[in-house]
Amino acid sequence: MRTPEISPARIERWGVAELSLQGRTSGNPFTDESVHARFTGVSEEVSANGFYDGDGIYRVRFMPSFAGEYRFILSASFLPEEIRGSFTVEEASTGNHGPVRIQDRFHFAYADGTPFYPLGTTCYVWELQSDELISQTLRSLREARFNKLRFCLLPKHYDYNLGEPRSYPFEGTPMDSSVLTPDNFQEYTGKTRGNRFDLARPNPAHFRHIERCILELQKLGIEADLIVLHPYDRWGFSRMSREEDDLYWKYVIARFSAFRNIWWSLANEYDLMDAKAPEDWEHFGQLLLSRDPFGHLRSVHNCFSFFDFSRPWVTHCSIQRQELYRGAECTDRWREQFGKPVVLDEIAYEGNIQHGWGNITGEEMLRRFWEGAVRGGYPGHGETFLNRENVLWWSHGGPLRGESWKRIGFLLDVLQDVPGNGLRFLPAEWDSVCGVPEKEALAAETGYRLYYYSFMRPSFRVFRPEDDSTYHAEILDTWECSVSDAGCHKGPFRVELPAKPYMAVRIRKTASG
Amino acid sequence: MRTPEISPARIERWGVAELSLQGRTSGNPFTDESVHARFTGVSEEVSANGFYDGDGIYRVRFMPSFAGEYRFILSASFLPEEIRGSFTVEEASTGNHGPVRIQDRFHFAYADGTPFYPLGTTCYVWELQSDELISQTLRSLREARFNKLRFCLLPKHYDYNLGEPRSYPFEGTPMDSSVLTPDNFQEYTGKTRGNRFDLARPNPAHFRHIERCILELQKLGIEADLIVLHPYDRWGFSRMSREEDDLYWKYVIARFSAFRNIWWSLANEYDLMDAKAPEDWEHFGQLLLSRDPFGHLRSVHNCFSFFDFSRPWVTHCSIQRQELYRGAECTDRWREQFGKPVVLDEIAYEGNIQHGWGNITGEEMLRRFWEGAVRGGYPGHGETFLNRENVLWWSHGGPLRGESWKRIGFLLDVLQDVPGNGLRFLPAEWDSVCGVPEKEALAAETGYRLYYYSFMRPSFRVFRPEDDSTYHAEILDTWECSVSDAGCHKGPFRVELPAKPYMAVRIRKTASG
Repeated sequence: MRTPEISPARIERWGVAELSLQGRTSGNPFTDESVHARFTGVSEEVSANGFYDGDGIYRVRFMPSFAGEYRFILSASFLPEEIRGSFTVEEASTGNHGPVRIQDRFHFAYADGTPFYPLGTTCYVWELQSDELISQTLRSLREARFNKLRFCLLPKHYDYNLGEPRSYPFEGTPMDSSVLTPDNFQEYTGKTRGNRFDLARPNPAHFRHIERCILELQKLGIEADLIVLHPYDRWGFSRMSREEDDLYWKYVIARFSAFRNIWWSLANEYDLMDAKAPEDWEHFGQLLLSRDPFGHLRSVHNCFSFFDFSRPWVTHCSIQRQELYRGAECTDRWREQFGKPVVLDEIAYEGNIQHGWGNITGEEMLRRFWEGAVRGGYPGHGETFLNRENVLWWSHGGPLRGESWKRIGFLLDVLQDVPGNGLRFLPAEWDSVCGVPEKEALAAETGYRLYYYSFMRPSFRVFRPEDDSTYHAEILDTWECSVSDAGCHKGPFRVELPAKPYMAVRIRKTASG
Repeated sequence: MRTPEISPARIERWGVAELSLQGRTSGNPFTDESVHARFTGVSEEVSANGFYDGDGIYRVRFMPSFAGEYRFILSASFLPEEIRGSFTVEEASTGNHGPVRIQDRFHFAYADGTPFYPLGTTCYVWELQSDELISQTLRSLREARFNKLRFCLLPKHYDYNLGEPRSYPFEGTPMDSSVLTPDNFQEYTGKTRGNRFDLARPNPAHFRHIERCILELQKLGIEADLIVLHPYDRWGFSRMSREEDDLYWKYVIARFSAFRNIWWSLANEYDLMDAKAPEDWEHFGQLLLSRDPFGHLRSVHNCFSFFDFSRPWVTHCSIQRQELYRGAECTDRWREQFGKPVVLDEIAYEGNIQHGWGNITGEEMLRRFWEGAVRGGYPGHGETFLNRENVLWWSHGGPLRGESWKRIGFLLDVLQDVPGNGLRFLPAEWDSVCGVPEKEALAAETGYRLYYYSFMRPSFRVFRPEDDSTYHAEILDTWECSVSDAGCHKGPFRVELPAKPYMAVRIRKTASG
């Protein structure tokens, strides 16, 4: 009777407990075999499906939500009977706050209650680049203050993305990419010709590598927003059959669910995937509901038409703006429309490429961040600067070249300082964006108001508090990332401003009231 | 039997022929007397009402639309019988193209057929300032290249506009304005208390002065867009009775109609005039139709809700943008909605005052101009910069302090170069604004395309002409006001761009085709 290996030596709350054991290698272990475990602690009982990791090794992963003793019962198609065992889960170590959940309808918090304000960026296939480039991306992320990263599990075929990924998700060989040019690549998009992949045999090395990348992000406090499917494909992965899709989805869910820092993005630009119908997305959503026992966040990202974010299994809106001029400016409307957190995963990228979605200035990118954040949404960043090396942050990671990324941390500091766990839009004035604490009682008690002036540049503004409390006013230069004192005031008061764009004023009641 | 004086000595086509004569001064000449003339030439017969100009003098004005001999029959309430006479109208002198008319549904041309591209500015009460300030405004206008100026016939009461005008439109005395402050002025808006005006006695000196200003603008080639009513009032002029309004309107129409360079703006922000109902505007529109024999352009400017521009007597849309973020960007939609020329009379002003409508950058002002113009509309400018002298261009005229005004002439040059007489929006690409000649045949024949990239900053763009003609491409830097050659091309071609905002590319077929 084999005993599964239990790792790591120290299992902590919201860490990954992994049971691994040798199993059958004949036939196709991915389709012929199955492995499963039930984990029971004092406060929870969880069933988890395992996966085949190659070389005869099968694994089942579990993220305990509590510290304490856990028992497990492991079963597998190749085992004559169940195996039982147990392990101890320690308290979470410093910096481990658990997975991110929805809180107060429009906001986020870690499982331990710490508010989480997602201010993310996009590097679609950073993890499929060379080791050197991956290291550089991680260095960039260490310097920046993004706390969420969107990326794809499958390789990407698109303008500026014609090279081969470091590995493929399935066994087999790809089409000859030497024929591709920036002018002809679209003729190959969504086609399968020339590829020889066995879609019944995932490539464990591909996914094992992605796990290492997820853990690197975890160390940096970054949520990995995993894009499971996407249309920018020349290998056939965007048009697999229902059976092939199911194998892929089940494999991915079994491998990644136990990592506390993952989110599920069912697709990037789902509406460009012409081989998928609405019922497919519904099916994938149900697969996640039934097979991710840890309930990670779930959404679907659009190109043109929003996904129906009102579906009950969708936890938050993952939005690509729908028009050239307004995007983040619609955040309050979208919150109202869908009643869920609004994550603005694409509101154009800072850069200078030919495409209009990838050539806004750093000022405009940052302005969109503030427009979205002050309205109680969570904007996302990206960079698309031309360079000799053809390393564009938006796909490959690498160095950050723009100006907005340096200023996202200041916004994060401002959000972390908001009483409670997030802002909502207060339609206070037609010519400023005003954010107040989401909870009405907190908004009233603290008198906190964050006024953002966007592209406008007032020389001063007059404030008329609703009561006769004393208010402390501060001037925020969102571009220079500075806060300056504008005094304490009772009754109407005037704040002098530098007549520059991108300024904000923050007021709140003083402690003495 | 008195003979009327006919002036000036040389009457030209589209000039003003004026008949003046002495009449009764007893009673109230403004209400008790009337004067009227019928002018008959070979090609037209026109009836015109006269007006009392004070000091016993009555005048009737006529703008001949043709050169040649004219006869007239003059009658007046104080004349025992009609007076007949005649005069000769000479050809128009250089620079006199006649009044502006609608051409090709969405555009404008002078009566002599010369296309007119209104790119205007706003100085609400420039003409009611001191002689010195008026001269300064005219010097500024001489240097700038605006060809339309919006201004009010009545004085203005508003933030930064609390002083007294140089004259009042009626006999009487105003309220004591020494009580007004930037904090309390709104309590007086639309009130009449403290004023003693005789609304049955217009003040001829007030209107005579405005005529001189209209003529000064005419010399500069600037259309005077006369705002007849507005809500920013503390004297009661915004809440006159129907009878008082009629006297005022008839007086104004009789005095000003014969000046070729006037347009009628029935009101600024008509929807803020709470003493006026929809039937009042209809009535004023009908007054203009029946009493302005020269058919000058007519529109009504909004604050929040557009006037119903589809009314048959409205010649063009006079638009104030309705939202904070988009304005000029909606031009093509508004053209489609109303089927008339779109004049964007207020899309915010370059400046730095506290109000969001008056503190955009020069870059943003110019961007809005291009967004509107490339879509086949006609944007307007304004400036609101704080200064010690409290002279803000938007109301007082004076010096131009901003950056956008210097660059409007370049846009005018570009428009004048468009084949035909104006642009229409071609929905060619989602991430550029493309303007083509309004007339389809011209657009096809010339291959003219004007692509504007707005706030985006592409490093290059690829063009794919629809045919195999040779196309000449030019790069327009709308901020630097420069045009640079980008070569001649057959088939798809690429234009390198400087990755800066506010760039445009112009292409057209070469002569050789």
